[in-house]
Amino acid sequence: MSTIRAAIVGYGNLGKSVEKLIKSTPDMETYGIFSRRDQLDTDTPVYSVDEFAAKAEAKEFDVALLCTGSATDIPEQAVEYVKHAPTVDTYDNHRDVPRHKQAMDEAAREAGTVAIVSTGWDPGMFSLNRTMAQAILPTAEQHTFWGPGLSQGHSDALRRIDGVKKAVQYTLPDEAALDKARAQQAGDLTGKQAHVRSCYVVADESEHERIEHEIRTMPDYFEGYTVEVHFIDEATFDAEHTGMPHGGHVITAGDTGGYTETIEYILKLDRNPDFTASVQIAYARAAARLAEQGTTGAYTVLEVAPYLISPTPLDELIARDV
Amino acid sequence: MSTIRAAIVGYGNLGKSVEKLIKSTPDMETYGIFSRRDQLDTDTPVYSVDEFAAKAEAKEFDVALLCTGSATDIPEQAVEYVKHAPTVDTYDNHRDVPRHKQAMDEAAREAGTVAIVSTGWDPGMFSLNRTMAQAILPTAEQHTFWGPGLSQGHSDALRRIDGVKKAVQYTLPDEAALDKARAQQAGDLTGKQAHVRSCYVVADESEHERIEHEIRTMPDYFEGYTVEVHFIDEATFDAEHTGMPHGGHVITAGDTGGYTETIEYILKLDRNPDFTASVQIAYARAAARLAEQGTTGAYTVLEVAPYLISPTPLDELIARDV
Repeated sequence: MSTIRAAIVGYGNLGKSVEKLIKSTPDMETYGIFSRRDQLDTDTPVYSVDEFAAKAEAKEFDVALLCTGSATDIPEQAVEYVKHAPTVDTYDNHRDVPRHKQAMDEAAREAGTVAIVSTGWDPGMFSLNRTMAQAILPTAEQHTFWGPGLSQGHSDALRRIDGVKKAVQYTLPDEAALDKARAQQAGDLTGKQAHVRSCYVVADESEHERIEHEIRTMPDYFEGYTVEVHFIDEATFDAEHTGMPHGGHVITAGDTGGYTETIEYILKLDRNPDFTASVQIAYARAAARLAEQGTTGAYTVLEVAPYLISPTPLDELIARDV
Repeated sequence: MSTIRAAIVGYGNLGKSVEKLIKSTPDMETYGIFSRRDQLDTDTPVYSVDEFAAKAEAKEFDVALLCTGSATDIPEQAVEYVKHAPTVDTYDNHRDVPRHKQAMDEAAREAGTVAIVSTGWDPGMFSLNRTMAQAILPTAEQHTFWGPGLSQGHSDALRRIDGVKKAVQYTLPDEAALDKARAQQAGDLTGKQAHVRSCYVVADESEHERIEHEIRTMPDYFEGYTVEVHFIDEATFDAEHTGMPHGGHVITAGDTGGYTETIEYILKLDRNPDFTASVQIAYARAAARLAEQGTTGAYTVLEVAPYLISPTPLDELIARDV
């Protein structure tokens, strides 16, 4: 296949990351962005989503990267897009993935197209790692830890407290819990025990004590968790706390007759949407290849042969990486 | 497929690990061990390698796990085995993998069988991780570090020194080098700079100074490396240094426009052959399934869809892990 022409659907954080990163992807170019908005602040060609079907049927692009929201957009609209072109999405409602895959599979088979669903890192690379590590160590304990990562909902909750000027909340894996998981001793450690909620807050010093108390006693959000509260000045906040870091660990520790074998997969991401976009782009390459081979239907990352996501030819991969 | 019947070829450390671990593999059973030796210390049925072809053609087993050595056995004999049955090997001569795969592919296609080559962890899981991480972060720096791991050749070199009663050498990644790789600042760090050679030696105290000097100045093996020499007593040696630990890190750090995204895959193995066997068993499952589907030819881990190595049905995997 010559250069893969990629359409971007949606222009939020993820769509902007995809647009940026395709520029440094040697075998792919952006065809354009499909949006419901009339004007976007970009040099990339912008089309109305209403034009998607016609442009797709005219084969003006090879694959569509669906970058709209998982809350309602993907479950409602993805099946419409895949009727006209190969799609890759990052649908992240874990419980609903089986239904989504099924719906996409039916639509794709009927239309003769292909979909790769729920790429990204969790679901996505973490899913792949969970499956493979459990397959290799079938008697293992497996734990997923998230963070250090920006928690949007908890940051919003902090900002609703009277007197808080700026605030973010990061969720961090508890170091002791990580070590227990690595030693196959974490048992059924719960999310509360396994994570620390670390808050960075800008507020007048006279308010610190009251604000800290309100944070620590906030039900559902902070009460019952290990909570750290750091008051910092506004300049520090602006310099150090406006990114979108995330990541986590999948730790699988299994016994092989008195010996412990541990597999750990770690992501440390300075910018969450950039990494999600990086994975989505790699699987867009796989979707374009599957479509070219005539494969139809919907697939998860578990079903895609790994070499299909690489821009490097298979023979070179085997010589370089195996 | 009902229970997969696995034949083991060769009964060294790897073959013994495979035999042990299949016992806790729910969907697999050991058919028997093919060996060139008349008698093995095992309750498993033992057959002469001369009987392999006939037993295979009679479909007495579904897949053969080749557990013979990579030095000469696999390159010379694997093509003969795959003419009669699906095979999985752990051939670990990295530079020769392309030739081996090609030879196995021709033999397997002609015979209508299937081979999965060079499974294990490096090559194997590390290969897979290198390919996928570079596909996701195409502009990244990538480094593989090995250890802490027992180095057989270097341990032998220590034991050849006059006055050394017992000795082992572990190769460890240098912590500072790991941190540089995670921060995308390791550049073209060489193996010498990236690893520490840690020696545990039992010898009379009067000999320590001379032995340490001989170790540190031994060309090729230790000279030019960061070397630690620990003299310990024999009881400590017997209690703590007779295992076969190994492992390592694949670290891939890429820039996404001013942000660093880091993927790290870590193996910490108490018993190297047990983990290699665990991976080989998982890919034996994949080989049996590919054979059942009528697929022929030779494949690396890069070409096998990940769900095929799991004993869990795909729908359950998607619900559980994605």
